[in-house]
Amino acid sequence: MEGFFSVTELSRVLAYVPDFGRVATETVELPDALGRVLSEDLRADEDLPPFSRSTMDGYAVKGSATFGASEANPAYLTVKGAIAMGESPAFSLMPGECARIATGGMLPDGADAVIMIEHAEGLDDFDIGGTIEVYRSAAPGQHVIQKGEDVQKGATLLTRGQRLRSQEIGLLAAFGIASISVYRRPLIGILSTGDEVVTLQETPLPGQIRDINTYTLSGLVREAGAEPRSFGIVKDDYDSLQSGIDQALAVSDMVLVSGGSSVGTRDFTIDVFSNLPDTAILVHGISISPGKPTILARVGNRAVWGLPGHVTSAMVVFSQVVRPFIDHVSGGSPDSGRPSRVISARLTRNIASAQGRIDFIRVRLMAEDGEMWAAPILGKSGLIHTMVKADGLVAVGMNAEGLDRDAVVSVIPV
Amino acid sequence: MEGFFSVTELSRVLAYVPDFGRVATETVELPDALGRVLSEDLRADEDLPPFSRSTMDGYAVKGSATFGASEANPAYLTVKGAIAMGESPAFSLMPGECARIATGGMLPDGADAVIMIEHAEGLDDFDIGGTIEVYRSAAPGQHVIQKGEDVQKGATLLTRGQRLRSQEIGLLAAFGIASISVYRRPLIGILSTGDEVVTLQETPLPGQIRDINTYTLSGLVREAGAEPRSFGIVKDDYDSLQSGIDQALAVSDMVLVSGGSSVGTRDFTIDVFSNLPDTAILVHGISISPGKPTILARVGNRAVWGLPGHVTSAMVVFSQVVRPFIDHVSGGSPDSGRPSRVISARLTRNIASAQGRIDFIRVRLMAEDGEMWAAPILGKSGLIHTMVKADGLVAVGMNAEGLDRDAVVSVIPV
Repeated sequence: MEGFFSVTELSRVLAYVPDFGRVATETVELPDALGRVLSEDLRADEDLPPFSRSTMDGYAVKGSATFGASEANPAYLTVKGAIAMGESPAFSLMPGECARIATGGMLPDGADAVIMIEHAEGLDDFDIGGTIEVYRSAAPGQHVIQKGEDVQKGATLLTRGQRLRSQEIGLLAAFGIASISVYRRPLIGILSTGDEVVTLQETPLPGQIRDINTYTLSGLVREAGAEPRSFGIVKDDYDSLQSGIDQALAVSDMVLVSGGSSVGTRDFTIDVFSNLPDTAILVHGISISPGKPTILARVGNRAVWGLPGHVTSAMVVFSQVVRPFIDHVSGGSPDSGRPSRVISARLTRNIASAQGRIDFIRVRLMAEDGEMWAAPILGKSGLIHTMVKADGLVAVGMNAEGLDRDAVVSVIPV
Repeated sequence: MEGFFSVTELSRVLAYVPDFGRVATETVELPDALGRVLSEDLRADEDLPPFSRSTMDGYAVKGSATFGASEANPAYLTVKGAIAMGESPAFSLMPGECARIATGGMLPDGADAVIMIEHAEGLDDFDIGGTIEVYRSAAPGQHVIQKGEDVQKGATLLTRGQRLRSQEIGLLAAFGIASISVYRRPLIGILSTGDEVVTLQETPLPGQIRDINTYTLSGLVREAGAEPRSFGIVKDDYDSLQSGIDQALAVSDMVLVSGGSSVGTRDFTIDVFSNLPDTAILVHGISISPGKPTILARVGNRAVWGLPGHVTSAMVVFSQVVRPFIDHVSGGSPDSGRPSRVISARLTRNIASAQGRIDFIRVRLMAEDGEMWAAPILGKSGLIHTMVKADGLVAVGMNAEGLDRDAVVSVIPV
C-alpha cells in the first residue's frame, strides 16, 4: 500500500479506468435514448433515402437531354405528368420528357436530375402534355439526393459505446428503429462523512455545518448521465463508515465517500476500504491540487472513492479523475469519444504553481475586444463561492512553475 | 410582409428575442433544480461558514503569540484542550495557550490561526495541560476559513435568470434552502409536415420517408432544457396545418413546424400563420445557409416557427436561431449568461462561401500534433449523416468569400 507521500500521478490513476466493469444493458424507447450510450453496433437494413428524391421544386429530367441548353438555345421538353408527394410515379420518362416534381418528390424511372422551376419556362402554362423551355444544362444528379446517398444499405449506422445526440436519434428514426439497447445508467452511491456535518433540513448548532458535498456530487453525477443516490451522512468512526459503505455497495455501481480530510479520518477511511472483501487500494494520494488526499479502492470490479471534504477539491477530483471512470462504467468507448470541449482563452494575470503536481486553477471567462479571457479566481478550496464564480479550470502541468499573463490556455468547462 | 427575397439578417432576427413572453414559475425541491433557471434573487440570511473553521489538523492559536518563532527559538504554548468536531469549544484561549483542532473544527474564542501539526512538537505527548513547541510564526487567519469568508450575510447568493449547475445547488444546500422557485420548463410543440412523411412505426411505401425532424427537434428541445411534445405529422394542406397548429398552440409556449420546403407549401404555411389570431409575421427568410426558408410569426406573445424540412437545415436553424428564443422564454437572463462555449480549431482545408449570408459549415474535430483541427464535412443539407459525423459548426460571415486552410475558427458544438 502506498503512503500519502508516494502520491500517484494523474495519468497513472487514469490508466486504471479499464480495470472496472461496465453496467448491464437495457432496452429503451427511441426518444428516451437521448444522452444514453449505445450498447450494440447498428447497421443500415435499407438505403437512406430508399429512393432518389428531388431537393428542389421543378422538373425531373434526363440530364443528358438538356446538355448544351442556354437562353439562346433552349431545350424543349414535354411535360409527361406531375409527381404526387409520397407516391411512386406511375410513369417513366423518355429523354425528351419531363415531370413536375416538388422538393422531396420521388424521381420517376428515366430521370436523373431536376431543373429548378426558375430555370424553365412553360410555353403553354406548364400543363401536362405541354412543353417547357429549359435554359441550362442539368448534370446527372443535380438537385437530387440519390437512393442510398445518405446511408447505404449494409453500412454501419452507429457503434457500441457512442453517446446518442439528437442527430443520432434522428438517424435511428429514419430507419424505423423504435427501441434500442443502451447501457443502464450507473447508480453512484454518495456518502458524506464528518461529525460536524448535518443535513440540509437541520439548523446547524455552533460548530456544525450543512452537508454541501452530497448535493454538488449528486449534480455532477447526474450531469455525467449517471444516477446519484445519497446514503446520508455518516459519523467519523470506523463502524459507521463501514456500515454506510456496505449499504451503498449493496446497490451501487460505484461509491463516492467525501469528507474525512483530517489525518485521523483518512487513516480509518483507508482501514475501512482495506477491509472490504476482494479489495485493492489502487491510489492513496494523487499529485494534483486541489485534490491530493484522494483514495481509490477496487472492490471486486467496482470503484470506491475517498474524496476530499473541501467542496472545491471534491468537485475538481470528480471532473478530472472520477468522471472518466464513470464514463467507462457507463459503457462509453474511448475510441468513439469526441474531442473534449476545451475553450481557448488568454490569462488575465500570472499564476504561480508548484512543480511536481498538476494545479487546477478556477477561472472565469470574459469576452473582451473580440478575445476570450480567463481570469483566475483566488480562494481556498473550502470556499464554494469560488466554484460558483468559475466557468472552468485551467491545468498547470507537473513541470511548470506557473503561467504568464496573456498565455493562451485551454479552459475545461465546469 | 417581407417576401422571400427580402430575407432578414440573423442579428435582426435575434433582436426579436425580448418581444416574447416568459413562462410562469414553479417551486421545486433542491435536487430537482439542477439545470433549471432561477426565478428569484436570493440573498444570504447568515454567514457562510457561520463560524471560523480550521482547514488543517493542528493547533488553534493566537497568531501573535507565535510571532518570531523558529527552529532555533520556538514558541512554547500550553495545550488548553481539544476541540471536538461539530461542537462549540467550551473554553477560550489566552495568548500563551493553544487547542488541538482537526480540519473543519470551530476555532475557540481567542484563537485566530492554526499551526499545522507538522510544525509543532509536543514536549509531553501533546496531552491536555502539556506544552508544545512551535517552530514557525502563524499569521492571523492562517489555515482558517473565517466566519463569512465564503459568503457574507446579506450578500447576493444567486440572481434571477441563472441556470443552476451543481455548484449553485451546493451553495443553496449550504444555506438550508430545500426548495426554490424556478421557471417552468417551456412546452415546445412540434409538427412535421409533408404528404410524403410517415411515422416511425409505419413501413414507408415507395415515395414515402419516415419522420426524422420530430425526433431531432425533440432531442434539441430537451437539450435546451425545455419539454418537447409532438403533435404528429400533418398533411400538406391548409386545413390540416391550421388544425395542427391550433392544437399545438392550445398547450404550447412555442411551436415548431418543420417541412414545407417546397414553394407551394411555404405559401400556404405563411397563409396559415398570417390567419392565426393576433399574429405578426416577423421573419420570412433569413440570410443564413442552410436555413434560408425560415418563418417566424409572433402569435400573441408566443413564437411560431416555420423551419426548413431538410434535417440539417432544421438543426442549424434550431441551434443558431430558435435556441436563443427558447433560452429567453425559459427565463434565462442574457446578462447572467455565461460566455458561449466555442472551441478554437484550425481548418484542414479551404472553404468557399457566398457573400451576403452567413454560411454554417459542419465540421468534425480532430486532435493532432497537439492542435485541434476542424475538418469540413461536405454534403447536402438533406443528409442526416453529415450531422452525425459533425462535432460542430463554423460560421463564415456575411462579407467573407470563404476561409483559408489553417485559419483559426470558432467551432460551435452540436
